[in-house]
Amino acid sequence: MVAKQAYNVAVLGATGAVGRRILDQLAKSTIPFDQVKALASARSAGQTVPFKDGELTVEEATEDSFAGVDIVLASAGGSTSKALAPAAVKAGAVVVDNSSYWRMNDNVPLVVPEVNSAALKDHQGIIANPNCSTIQLVVALNLVFEKFGLKQVIISTYQAASGAGKAAMDEVLAEAQARLLGEDMADLAHVLPVKGDKKHYPLAFNLLPQIDVFEEEGYTHEEYKMIHETKKIILGDKNAKDIKVTGTAVRVPVMIGHGESVYIETGDENATADQIRAILADADQVVLQDDPATQTYPQPILAEGRRETFVGRIRPDLENPGAFHLWVVSDNLLKGAAWNTVEIAERLVDMDLVRVPDQSTFA
Amino acid sequence: MVAKQAYNVAVLGATGAVGRRILDQLAKSTIPFDQVKALASARSAGQTVPFKDGELTVEEATEDSFAGVDIVLASAGGSTSKALAPAAVKAGAVVVDNSSYWRMNDNVPLVVPEVNSAALKDHQGIIANPNCSTIQLVVALNLVFEKFGLKQVIISTYQAASGAGKAAMDEVLAEAQARLLGEDMADLAHVLPVKGDKKHYPLAFNLLPQIDVFEEEGYTHEEYKMIHETKKIILGDKNAKDIKVTGTAVRVPVMIGHGESVYIETGDENATADQIRAILADADQVVLQDDPATQTYPQPILAEGRRETFVGRIRPDLENPGAFHLWVVSDNLLKGAAWNTVEIAERLVDMDLVRVPDQSTFA
Repeated sequence: MVAKQAYNVAVLGATGAVGRRILDQLAKSTIPFDQVKALASARSAGQTVPFKDGELTVEEATEDSFAGVDIVLASAGGSTSKALAPAAVKAGAVVVDNSSYWRMNDNVPLVVPEVNSAALKDHQGIIANPNCSTIQLVVALNLVFEKFGLKQVIISTYQAASGAGKAAMDEVLAEAQARLLGEDMADLAHVLPVKGDKKHYPLAFNLLPQIDVFEEEGYTHEEYKMIHETKKIILGDKNAKDIKVTGTAVRVPVMIGHGESVYIETGDENATADQIRAILADADQVVLQDDPATQTYPQPILAEGRRETFVGRIRPDLENPGAFHLWVVSDNLLKGAAWNTVEIAERLVDMDLVRVPDQSTFA
Repeated sequence: MVAKQAYNVAVLGATGAVGRRILDQLAKSTIPFDQVKALASARSAGQTVPFKDGELTVEEATEDSFAGVDIVLASAGGSTSKALAPAAVKAGAVVVDNSSYWRMNDNVPLVVPEVNSAALKDHQGIIANPNCSTIQLVVALNLVFEKFGLKQVIISTYQAASGAGKAAMDEVLAEAQARLLGEDMADLAHVLPVKGDKKHYPLAFNLLPQIDVFEEEGYTHEEYKMIHETKKIILGDKNAKDIKVTGTAVRVPVMIGHGESVYIETGDENATADQIRAILADADQVVLQDDPATQTYPQPILAEGRRETFVGRIRPDLENPGAFHLWVVSDNLLKGAAWNTVEIAERLVDMDLVRVPDQSTFA
């Protein structure tokens, strides 16, 4: 079979903050695309979205939208992906899905290209893009894991409002304006911390230690996603079953760019911070920003609009040989969502995997 | 010796954000005060500051300011405390100092009253108030330590702008206003992350993983303060020499109220989250805010203006028996500074320790 010369691409959820960025990243990608279709809910049909130097008219996404489509880049929420991804696969398209719905499915590779693009070889038509807080984490962790092994990872996140969508960003800006005018912010909170949950709190000039709904044992769904997705991605390596991963997810009044304070216990008591710096400095798509003398360290406003993952504040735990702190920042809408999605599609093209296998569970 | 009926009190640094709150907390305290003096730099002399229903005229602080003073409550920065605290002690006053200068001095008790007020008995005229991020941390940690022991503590802080003073707060508000108007924030950063350091970055809608200057091994002074002060306070207990403490300090765009994501490994593999909740619920000056069903958890805007330390998000590490996550929030200007300072003075009064011992190092 010869790789196609050009692919027809559909972007599902094209009007959202991530969907628009998927279109932008697609335009800048190495993917040889032919027709590009913008799909969204019926409510958005007829709108236009920018693409390259022109624009696309948004069509309603239905089960019949995928005839002739080779690649679907989806960022339309779990229920839409649940309904439409199998329809797209049946129509012969490969779906790279940005929702959480398919991520833990055993028949769905969960991929960060720098980390585990080999997992793409077993795809059955659906590939999942991990959660934003997971992606930047595993980019950094995997490099350390490959060199020194990992025994334990403890994460505290500092996550931007944009992770909860454009309405959350608008809400924080409105709250900030109210606070600057000396007005009450409380009445303005309708979306955060979780759109469908019972209570809402202001995020401007505040911290909300709840991202997504609460589950068992007092953990939030976001925290479980970070734990389980990290294990699925890195622990695809059979020698890595024993890495312990735990953490706390906190929403902070930042617009774009998640921060993560990451504590790692490596498998090598002689590992040094300089060695970790050298590994990260050499890695593609990682930018080492770690120089106390020049006050150089990752910051969300410096990461905004960039595809890379930024790592700094690398320090040994002075009482626990082989353990280190890292501070990791990335644009949650790009590497954490749109760019990683398009990057997966680039790899599918490069690896000649843009096809649904005959025996797909989903077809 | 009979305890005095009333004490003359001097507040040093009375015009600052913390100094004003010390005056307010003093007015609301159980300390029987007689004369109250407001002291500050020559630049502020002649200004007035509110006290009770009236106001005090600020006097210039000099070595001669302490005649007849029984208690000095100081929040005037390290160099002023270095110069004036011994002068106050020589004049017969007991100094409760909020700067970092005296904290690690072996002749100076470092005190959080709920944790180690017994250490006050050995004071030689100067008692140090710990760093804001340390105080709220040890309030929670000590309760767990006393019940279960502690092997390791790993902290990630989310620290408010007010920890860097009023100028930092004003800077963040100005940056936020610029951002809302679509203007550039970068030109407005002159104070944060550290007033005297070479570079300055905006904090509004950003994260700055630098608090205080950098020291050895890539740690900031704030991180070392948190580590060493925590050990001095909790490890006053001789059985506790082996607690490992490490962490990362990050400034967040919050005005008042520090958050801390705290991971603890207790000494008891059978400890449960419910037991920790019960201990914290019973503790004076701690408010347990930990109910996922009602989305109840500590938030800076709920802690502002309160004396207590708020703890929630208590969860077991599901892979490490005996280890837990806590989320701790407190008003950094009150429990983290002004209230803890006044509370130390209340304890000195209650314990009849408002006197300089004959053999003081400082007198």
